[in-house]
Amino acid sequence: MKLLNDTIALIGPLDRKAMDETRRRLDSLLKPRGSLGVLETIAEQLAGITGSVFNDIKKKAVIVLLADNGVYEEGIASYPQEITTVGAACLTKGMMGINVLARHAGALVLPVDIGIRTDVEAEGLMKRKVRYGTGNIAKEPAMTREEAVRAIETGIDLAREAIDGGVNLLGAGEMGIGNTTSSSAVLYALTGESIDLLTGRGAGLDDKGLERKKDIIEKAVKLHRPDSGDPVDVLSKVGGLDIAGMAGVYLAAAARRVPVVVDGFIAGAAALTAIRLAPGAREYMIPSHLSEEAGAKVFARLTGLAPILNMNMRLGEGTGCALAFGIIEAAVKIIKEMGTFADIGM
Amino acid sequence: MKLLNDTIALIGPLDRKAMDETRRRLDSLLKPRGSLGVLETIAEQLAGITGSVFNDIKKKAVIVLLADNGVYEEGIASYPQEITTVGAACLTKGMMGINVLARHAGALVLPVDIGIRTDVEAEGLMKRKVRYGTGNIAKEPAMTREEAVRAIETGIDLAREAIDGGVNLLGAGEMGIGNTTSSSAVLYALTGESIDLLTGRGAGLDDKGLERKKDIIEKAVKLHRPDSGDPVDVLSKVGGLDIAGMAGVYLAAAARRVPVVVDGFIAGAAALTAIRLAPGAREYMIPSHLSEEAGAKVFARLTGLAPILNMNMRLGEGTGCALAFGIIEAAVKIIKEMGTFADIGM
Repeated sequence: MKLLNDTIALIGPLDRKAMDETRRRLDSLLKPRGSLGVLETIAEQLAGITGSVFNDIKKKAVIVLLADNGVYEEGIASYPQEITTVGAACLTKGMMGINVLARHAGALVLPVDIGIRTDVEAEGLMKRKVRYGTGNIAKEPAMTREEAVRAIETGIDLAREAIDGGVNLLGAGEMGIGNTTSSSAVLYALTGESIDLLTGRGAGLDDKGLERKKDIIEKAVKLHRPDSGDPVDVLSKVGGLDIAGMAGVYLAAAARRVPVVVDGFIAGAAALTAIRLAPGAREYMIPSHLSEEAGAKVFARLTGLAPILNMNMRLGEGTGCALAFGIIEAAVKIIKEMGTFADIGM
Repeated sequence: MKLLNDTIALIGPLDRKAMDETRRRLDSLLKPRGSLGVLETIAEQLAGITGSVFNDIKKKAVIVLLADNGVYEEGIASYPQEITTVGAACLTKGMMGINVLARHAGALVLPVDIGIRTDVEAEGLMKRKVRYGTGNIAKEPAMTREEAVRAIETGIDLAREAIDGGVNLLGAGEMGIGNTTSSSAVLYALTGESIDLLTGRGAGLDDKGLERKKDIIEKAVKLHRPDSGDPVDVLSKVGGLDIAGMAGVYLAAAARRVPVVVDGFIAGAAALTAIRLAPGAREYMIPSHLSEEAGAKVFARLTGLAPILNMNMRLGEGTGCALAFGIIEAAVKIIKEMGTFADIGM
């Protein structure tokens, strides 16, 4: 709990002076004011985060958290539970979507077992298991409060290690059969928004499966009565180990003043958890894509983090982060490399 | 006219067999079916264009067409007309937004004087002037029918030269004070959609300027009565030389079976012109970003070319193309580099 509290305490506001200076520089460039839209906004945000008008993306990484979800046994998933275990090995072999997109972006993939239900031996898989999958939230809490804190702090540690290793642009992804159910449950408990808006088909549920999924989430929340004002309580009662770990990554990035990219729907549940723990963390987040999974829109609306990519993706793994990295690097270059009206004597 | 007709005649359908094979391959990859959304759609489209499941982006280029618009003298622009001339030189010096974003994407910028009103000497600027700016459409036709054909054929030639030089992913951009007015006029004449939906603030008009711009477009269309069924007539009466050239680029790309990225609003007017000349050209176009300029949404709705980037950009120059190039290359890599369920014996 100390690491979590210390991390939250470190999160400060953006550097408004650097942002103002950046705005002036952007307005001096050879273009109509504001015409590069979100590229300009990102350049300002990065200045606010780092305190420098001109930035340099030195090393990029996506931390991919793997965990199982006990609620799988309720039949809410469209793929067998073994996929989490198999996926862990495939991630370390560079075969998955995030591997390809991260290579394309020149970014590292850091796969982490934070809660797979089996023991996985794979070279390159970081072993940080908090427990062997969550409990089945239809019947029992996902985890203890102590485990939820430990999972968040695991994410904090992972982000700190990456940053200590020179990473200055972070993303977080996940893999874990059943984790859209946990994510919808977390968002439902935190926000009280309609279950219909928050719950989607995951990897491919049919109509009947979708209704069942909603029922189970509603029942789980009724059964455990998570306190919407206490994000750790929400995570422990209906959350997932991957979600908790991702929340930790966002918090640590903010505390260390490193920009962090938010992927899709599950990432949104984790990001909202982090924002509820430390509202200031939001300013260090850069949204990536609008997931096709229902609920992603609710996250964007509640946080104002408007996705820049609209590609009907719903794979997770941090794939949206990897695609957004290239755009963030473009924002960094615009302000450094474009000419100004002064350069041409105008 | 012969080159234009020959080009249109060459535009054939996509290769459905290659697309089906690509779909099967995509469905065998280690992910839920369809979960990479538009990345998968792009991979299928590229296969349909090239006839190959596996593609390789060898050389990328953005052809940037520069031209002036006589309607400038009606006071519809928020920047001085000299900017087109000045911009041409800055483009060749690598100082503009498209230069930075194209470098970031590893793409060439090919700046072309297709109709600047002055004689510009700048190393690297291709001289293909069709005329010294268009006529003021509030009083006279933009150009003759012969000039409109020549401007389209200039775009065809430029694209053919780039493709002959090894470019296999193309984009088209523009620069020219007053060209959002010409673009709105073209779209208004081609589609009959509401002038309010089609007309925006360009580089920064105020409310009064915007109303004036709409008036002038409506009057020009009333004065010249362009035939909505004859895109060359529309271009010659209310269009622009850059718009005509871009339409030529799209047509030549389709004829040569090379994917071409559509930038923002002005590009949309050109792309719709190309589609009206040759409906099959649409299948070779890849949309990039949703321009903040009003009218971009109308283009997306009418053509079904849904933008993948939502970044409130409105700079033109082909900047959206350059940002989209990285995403298109990601689509190419997904299908080549991801593992399959068969690879892991599932």
